[in-house]
Amino acid sequence: GFAKLDHHRKIRQGAAEVIYGAGKTPEQIRKITEAFRKKSDNAVLITRMSQEAADLVSASLPLHYNALSKTGIVGELPRKDGNGKIVIATGGTSDLPVAEEAALTAEILGNEVVRIYDVGVAGIHRLLAYSEDLMSAQVIVVIAGMEGALASVVGGLADCPVIAVPTSVGYGASFGGLSALLSMLNSCASGVSVVNIDNGFGAGYMASMINHV
Amino acid sequence: GFAKLDHHRKIRQGAAEVIYGAGKTPEQIRKITEAFRKKSDNAVLITRMSQEAADLVSASLPLHYNALSKTGIVGELPRKDGNGKIVIATGGTSDLPVAEEAALTAEILGNEVVRIYDVGVAGIHRLLAYSEDLMSAQVIVVIAGMEGALASVVGGLADCPVIAVPTSVGYGASFGGLSALLSMLNSCASGVSVVNIDNGFGAGYMASMINHV
Amino acid sequence: GFAKLDHHRKIRQGAAEVIYGAGKTPEQIRKITEAFRKKSDNAVLITRMSQEAADLVSASLPLHYNALSKTGIVGELPRKDGNGKIVIATGGTSDLPVAEEAALTAEILGNEVVRIYDVGVAGIHRLLAYSEDLMSAQVIVVIAGMEGALASVVGGLADCPVIAVPTSVGYGASFGGLSALLSMLNSCASGVSVVNIDNGFGAGYMASMINHV
Amino acid sequence: GFAKLDHHRKIRQGAAEVIYGAGKTPEQIRKITEAFRKKSDNAVLITRMSQEAADLVSASLPLHYNALSKTGIVGELPRKDGNGKIVIATGGTSDLPVAEEAALTAEILGNEVVRIYDVGVAGIHRLLAYSEDLMSAQVIVVIAGMEGALASVVGGLADCPVIAVPTSVGYGASFGGLSALLSMLNSCASGVSVVNIDNGFGAGYMASMINHV
Amino acid sequence: GFAKLDHHRKIRQGAAEVIYGAGKTPEQIRKITEAFRKKSDNAVLITRMSQEAADLVSASLPLHYNALSKTGIVGELPRKDGNGKIVIATGGTSDLPVAEEAALTAEILGNEVVRIYDVGVAGIHRLLAYSEDLMSAQVIVVIAGMEGALASVVGGLADCPVIAVPTSVGYGASFGGLSALLSMLNSCASGVSVVNIDNGFGAGYMASMINHV
Amino acid sequence: GFAKLDHHRKIRQGAAEVIYGAGKTPEQIRKITEAFRKKSDNAVLITRMSQEAADLVSASLPLHYNALSKTGIVGELPRKDGNGKIVIATGGTSDLPVAEEAALTAEILGNEVVRIYDVGVAGIHRLLAYSEDLMSAQVIVVIAGMEGALASVVGGLADCPVIAVPTSVGYGASFGGLSALLSMLNSCASGVSVVNIDNGFGAGYMASMINHV
Amino acid sequence: GFAKLDHHRKIRQGAAEVIYGAGKTPEQIRKITEAFRKKSDNAVLITRMSQEAADLVSASLPLHYNALSKTGIVGELPRKDGNGKIVIATGGTSDLPVAEEAALTAEILGNEVVRIYDVGVAGIHRLLAYSEDLMSAQVIVVIAGMEGALASVVGGLADCPVIAVPTSVGYGASFGGLSALLSMLNSCASGVSVVNIDNGFGAGYMASMINHV
Amino acid sequence: GFAKLDHHRKIRQGAAEVIYGAGKTPEQIRKITEAFRKKSDNAVLITRMSQEAADLVSASLPLHYNALSKTGIVGELPRKDGNGKIVIATGGTSDLPVAEEAALTAEILGNEVVRIYDVGVAGIHRLLAYSEDLMSAQVIVVIAGMEGALASVVGGLADCPVIAVPTSVGYGASFGGLSALLSMLNSCASGVSVVNIDNGFGAGYMASMINHV
Ligand SMILES: Nc1ncnc2c1ncn2[C@@H]1O[C@H](COP(=O)(O)O)[C@@H](O)[C@H]1O
Ligand SMILES: Nc1ncnc2c1ncn2[C@@H]1O[C@H](COP(=O)(O)O)[C@@H](O)[C@H]1O
Ligand SMILES: Nc1ncnc2c1ncn2[C@@H]1O[C@H](COP(=O)(O)O)[C@@H](O)[C@H]1O
Ligand SMILES: Nc1ncnc2c1ncn2[C@@H]1O[C@H](COP(=O)(O)O)[C@@H](O)[C@H]1O
Ligand SMILES: [Mg+2]
Ligand SMILES: [Mg+2]
Ligand SMILES: [Mg+2]
Ligand SMILES: [Mg+2]
Ligand SMILES: [Mg+2]
Ligand SMILES: [Mg+2]
Ligand SMILES: [Mg+2]
Ligand SMILES: [Mg+2]
Repeated sequence: GFAKLDHHRKIRQGAAEVIYGAGKTPEQIRKITEAFRKKSDNAVLITRMSQEAADLVSASLPLHYNALSKTGIVGELPRKDGNGKIVIATGGTSDLPVAEEAALTAEILGNEVVRIYDVGVAGIHRLLAYSEDLMSAQVIVVIAGMEGALASVVGGLADCPVIAVPTSVGYGASFGGLSALLSMLNSCASGVSVVNIDNGFGAGYMASMINHV
Repeated sequence: GFAKLDHHRKIRQGAAEVIYGAGKTPEQIRKITEAFRKKSDNAVLITRMSQEAADLVSASLPLHYNALSKTGIVGELPRKDGNGKIVIATGGTSDLPVAEEAALTAEILGNEVVRIYDVGVAGIHRLLAYSEDLMSAQVIVVIAGMEGALASVVGGLADCPVIAVPTSVGYGASFGGLSALLSMLNSCASGVSVVNIDNGFGAGYMASMINHV
Repeated sequence: GFAKLDHHRKIRQGAAEVIYGAGKTPEQIRKITEAFRKKSDNAVLITRMSQEAADLVSASLPLHYNALSKTGIVGELPRKDGNGKIVIATGGTSDLPVAEEAALTAEILGNEVVRIYDVGVAGIHRLLAYSEDLMSAQVIVVIAGMEGALASVVGGLADCPVIAVPTSVGYGASFGGLSALLSMLNSCASGVSVVNIDNGFGAGYMASMINHV
Repeated sequence: GFAKLDHHRKIRQGAAEVIYGAGKTPEQIRKITEAFRKKSDNAVLITRMSQEAADLVSASLPLHYNALSKTGIVGELPRKDGNGKIVIATGGTSDLPVAEEAALTAEILGNEVVRIYDVGVAGIHRLLAYSEDLMSAQVIVVIAGMEGALASVVGGLADCPVIAVPTSVGYGASFGGLSALLSMLNSCASGVSVVNIDNGFGAGYMASMINHV
Repeated sequence: GFAKLDHHRKIRQGAAEVIYGAGKTPEQIRKITEAFRKKSDNAVLITRMSQEAADLVSASLPLHYNALSKTGIVGELPRKDGNGKIVIATGGTSDLPVAEEAALTAEILGNEVVRIYDVGVAGIHRLLAYSEDLMSAQVIVVIAGMEGALASVVGGLADCPVIAVPTSVGYGASFGGLSALLSMLNSCASGVSVVNIDNGFGAGYMASMINHV
Repeated sequence: GFAKLDHHRKIRQGAAEVIYGAGKTPEQIRKITEAFRKKSDNAVLITRMSQEAADLVSASLPLHYNALSKTGIVGELPRKDGNGKIVIATGGTSDLPVAEEAALTAEILGNEVVRIYDVGVAGIHRLLAYSEDLMSAQVIVVIAGMEGALASVVGGLADCPVIAVPTSVGYGASFGGLSALLSMLNSCASGVSVVNIDNGFGAGYMASMINHV
Repeated sequence: GFAKLDHHRKIRQGAAEVIYGAGKTPEQIRKITEAFRKKSDNAVLITRMSQEAADLVSASLPLHYNALSKTGIVGELPRKDGNGKIVIATGGTSDLPVAEEAALTAEILGNEVVRIYDVGVAGIHRLLAYSEDLMSAQVIVVIAGMEGALASVVGGLADCPVIAVPTSVGYGASFGGLSALLSMLNSCASGVSVVNIDNGFGAGYMASMINHV
Repeated sequence: GFAKLDHHRKIRQGAAEVIYGAGKTPEQIRKITEAFRKKSDNAVLITRMSQEAADLVSASLPLHYNALSKTGIVGELPRKDGNGKIVIATGGTSDLPVAEEAALTAEILGNEVVRIYDVGVAGIHRLLAYSEDLMSAQVIVVIAGMEGALASVVGGLADCPVIAVPTSVGYGASFGGLSALLSMLNSCASGVSVVNIDNGFGAGYMASMINHV
């Protein structure tokens, strides 16, 4: 076949396989999904999946498709076996697609996820209202576009590792997420590391790894 | 002479003249200062002034030199005739040179200045402790390098205009202040506008204008 | 609901609420607008609103929609209670959408607005013809793309605060507004501060703040 | 004093305090160190510390100074109470200063550190020789300049979280670490997150957090 | 005619002519192809050829069109007269269009091509399984997007010249191929040189030249 | 010798030869100058010449050295045989080194030069005072750093060709002259073309060419 | 009206008026064109004009529309009253739209234009075949994308002023014309100045100015 | 020892070992050189070697040090066993340090090198005078800063592979070699590939590989 089926693509810590849908035809996605399902009972996560691909896969497989984040799941979510909770916080409502990609990735890898959305730093009281959630998290994923300041504020409040995801939300001098990216890399808070712009999957995966250490 | 003496260089609203010392020899600075002093009693502000230039000017004129911000003042500060107070807040101690340039500029233009230094967002409680000062300000100057998140947080807390100054403090992906600059331009808080990297003078001047509207 | 209704999003100084329409569905915009209207009599400003969203909102609410700037207003404009006039000047006719976003924002916040459009510096006499308006303004918003030189020239002429808005108008080495942005940040005129590329709302809001100090 | 002594600057999980030496005078560093030592028995870590500052602090305090990484430690290392081992791998010998900053940070925070230096991907057998170390790590810090490819290769081999640190090692199109930074952010391996260019401290801190989850 | 027919555009070493289809209308491509065919028996390679152009050319000439890489060939492939084999390796399946442009270019220039696709460094065993192919190549073309690390790893394994082609595959901080480009230019392996982003043709041509030295 | 003596390096239109001093040792500069003088009576212009090189050349040749612009001239200025006057205008006094490089280049090529220095757009009346000079110029060289707005204003006032020279004068977001460069390339005035940052020589040369058409 | 009719927009040296069509509706273009025609007999040049706008204007005015360069002309070309010939040379056939914008601009301003298209430096003999044309030109416009090397080679061959126009032709690391722009700004040939990417109008205008000095 | 002695660092095709001197202390360089010499008779090449390191190594070993290119060689050059000649061409005299690094690298790897220096494209006749050398080369290394146009012109003239080396020679918009780098990557000539800015070693090594295929 066109793509080498690779044992290493199986996500080791959870019980899931993952397909990166971008640049694959619906037909290719369907074939790889079926091949995975034939090999084992593991749930399959498909990211960056178009509605068109979702429709095709749905025809032959029981797909749960989240249109907002363009994420599909085939199979049962595994039981939640992480050490604690993963909190996912976003600056605005426009960051939700990335946040849901992160959340679904974390869930398919066996994590309990707490969603705290739309708590951007321009209204700091909104964030502070969730202090308890932040303090009891095992790991926090912070997702924000524009100036990405949320990562520093959360990093300063919390004592656990923070994974920051810059998003391409914004216009003008946000330069497709560059502003938030640089901001997060330069965070003055300790215990913050960064993944690629809009990479919700990467953040969810990393958070799960830390939650299963 | 080499530089056209310009009525418009007199800062109109206060009672001061200003010399931008960068790229001028100590001798040139001395000559322009003396020319200004001959013309009127107005105080003269000299920014980006080297120690060497300060030594030369001091020889013939009563100069107050602030070595940290490389700012010199000749003459009396005018009386404080602004509408209210200008608060100047910095993220870290490394931002102090820029902050003092802003503060001295504001003071020579007849403003009362409240300094709130080292209140970066990684320890948000430090900032919140000054809420009262922030709420009672007529205009706030926020000075920060690295991720520049302070501008958004202060902009969200306060109801008055915020002038944000990115600084070149940081290393690596701060790219000489670019990170803080983009961050501040993309602030999700309303009522924030931005001046050039390290431009303490510009911020102090703008703040004074607003405080004298 | 999906978006936290936030007291702090009410613009405090005027009597308006504001919705940032980008990235929101027409349905979401309609719901938030109605919720705001139920809570109070304040006018609601919707920026970055598509024609489609305008059509939907119009069905149930008395919307005034400005298609050029994609701005909608529901409710009465408040009375003009600012200290003076806000002048809005643009370099060319292509800057009008941004200018109208700024103007409508200022008006909904209770300001008298004077529009001086298409006075770019390549024909300096066109600008000089408005010297009187410029000199009598309380605050000026300068909106220009390409080389953004208008901000410096206006900043040099006027004695009041200037808020500069770079626009993405131009091609080639304008790099989506970067050229105008850098130009404005490096303005050799004092009393100029800058907001994000194409951010008419931010400029109108800041100008209103200054006009209500 | 000039810098607010801040409870939150005490690194909570270990038993250490940390001073960021860049932009501080030797005298300032000495004062803060002494203040920290007076408050408690915790070891103090000073990063970005010049030889000059080290000489001054040594005069009054028992400082261990690592000249390569410009890192100083005052006080006893705490006992190693992490869950497992932190592996620190570098691409070349020029990355050692950053690596030692990371290693000493991790050690002062109570971690056992395994150093694997000079295992760049151009000689992949050198890296593969350490497979066992990589597989038994709790968390891995990968430090590399130039093309930064080591992060992806290690990320692919190991099952634990990888913290990648781009370094400014290189010339020409490495653009001060930008090349390695972008490379690491775009890693095709899952479980890799990134800190700022040359930020050994940040990586060591994050790794310690994960090792103490 | 509009384009000067140029003896120098005939590719000297093989027996083929080449047309760069981008920015040419289907009609122009058809005319140039026919002119070339009238002049000689040489095969004609058309790169960046739209389906529409392929349809038009097919109507009057025996075109072999590869839709994936948008490459067309008219005429017989010449016999394989290179010194050895050209290996073409890709990091992922999304790099295939560029890889096929390179492969077809090499083949029309008289080379034997070995394709090794989807051997990205995040699963290094997949690449190592092809060690024999890599060691027996005369020249290797490495094609990868995202972090472009494959070039360094292959460059380290192999003893022959490596031509690296960054691709625009990726998102966010891949910045349209910039990440892979910088990565490849900074390769710590010797014997690696780089062509433009997505330039499969250039790499295939260069590889053929080396294989015919 | 190390550098090919090249008839084409003789500047054809005037009666001068030119040496680009950057990256040449004083000894090399002396040798090339002497070789030129042996070949003909033409004056020799040396740009980017260090004081050290000037001292060495002065020892054996009658050098006129302008320390501000680091320009040296050996031999007589030719008679002024251009069609009209070249006006050279600068935004500030810091642009003088570049302006003098341009002026001396123009003069050694047989042009009458009018210098209008320190007429930046923040005080537009200063520039307007020279309207007559600008209107009577054959060609104008505009030299400015920071926001580079002078080029557009002069271009709008004058009817002759304008050569714009961005300078690296400024700090922060001037990014070494990038701000002025982009600004000048995007000039909304017609009849403006641009040379490299700080390239006074190139502007003086181009202006002379136009003045001798 | 929405756009101030401006005497200065009349191109002084020729006998034409010019409208920049980008960002204007067909209706706006028609109105301005008619206003210009009512005021005088001068020909009107419309650049960046869509087919749609051309259709509308054609309905009421005798428009000559060049679809390749999206340029329209209403009225008679003036007689050719320049001092000599303007040569317009392009690197490839994809540069033709920009070249024709330049050529038509020059022609409407009263210049004789010689077109030398598709003479890129990769086949230097093609260019050298036109040496005579190049040597007899009064001014040369060089238009090239990709590496933009043509400007340097032509600048080295010719003795007259060269106006270089980078184009956005290319892909990958051409970054929308940035590559050619930087290349042309750094030309090692004297007598080359540069206009904005794709700015054929600006080059034609500048060339005409020089040809009418 | 601090650096793993690595069989793979032995350059396989020639009979030499290589040390990258940047970032190594003189003492480290001496130790590694001695270790290599103890292991075998192979010559050792040291690049980026300071005068200080050269002095130290000279004390104990017979070093040939080329100060211009900061390159040292210990041991005998091997016999010239390549297939043909390597031509190394530079645009200007400032490119010589990079050129000599390339030339010495090629020579220590057993190649005959022909140097053609200072043949930049602004005087194309200078280059054409060497047509014969160019046509008889097995591989050509083209080294140029500023606009880097030489690579395209040579690539168009020659039928053999061209390795292009951008240099950091230039100022202003050359941005440390970026201009030449982009130019070379976008070369419209086929058969050109590129190495890092100033990477003479990489080019000499690659050329040698091709000359020994
Ligand atoms: N055009 C605009 N650009 C940037 N920010 C805006 C714009 N329009 C509104 N806003 C901000 O967006 C907030 C409302 O956001 P939301 O709650 O997402 O609708 C307002 O309070 C403003 O601060
Ligand atoms: N090398 C470093 N790079 C970035 N941040 C650091 C570094 N070293 C220490 N820090 C941070 O700086 C804080 C101390 O800053 P300060 O109070 O200015 O000394 C620590 O808590 C860390 O968060
Ligand atoms: N995909 C490609 N990318 C870059 N250059 C190409 C490509 N395909 C062909 N070329 C070049 O374009 C030339 C033909 O250009 P043209 O005469 O415009 O068709 C060939 O000789 C190649 O040098
Ligand atoms: N300041 C300058 N900037 C750029 N190019 C210059 C400068 N001064 C002289 N040149 C060019 O350098 C050439 C002489 O170079 P060279 O033979 O290396 O001395 C002249 O003919 C000019 O084209
Ligand atoms: Mg924290
Ligand atoms: Mg606020
Ligand atoms: Mg002003
Ligand atoms: Mg892994
Ligand atoms: Mg190799
Ligand atoms: Mg003009
Ligand atoms: Mg010339
Ligand atoms: Mg060739």
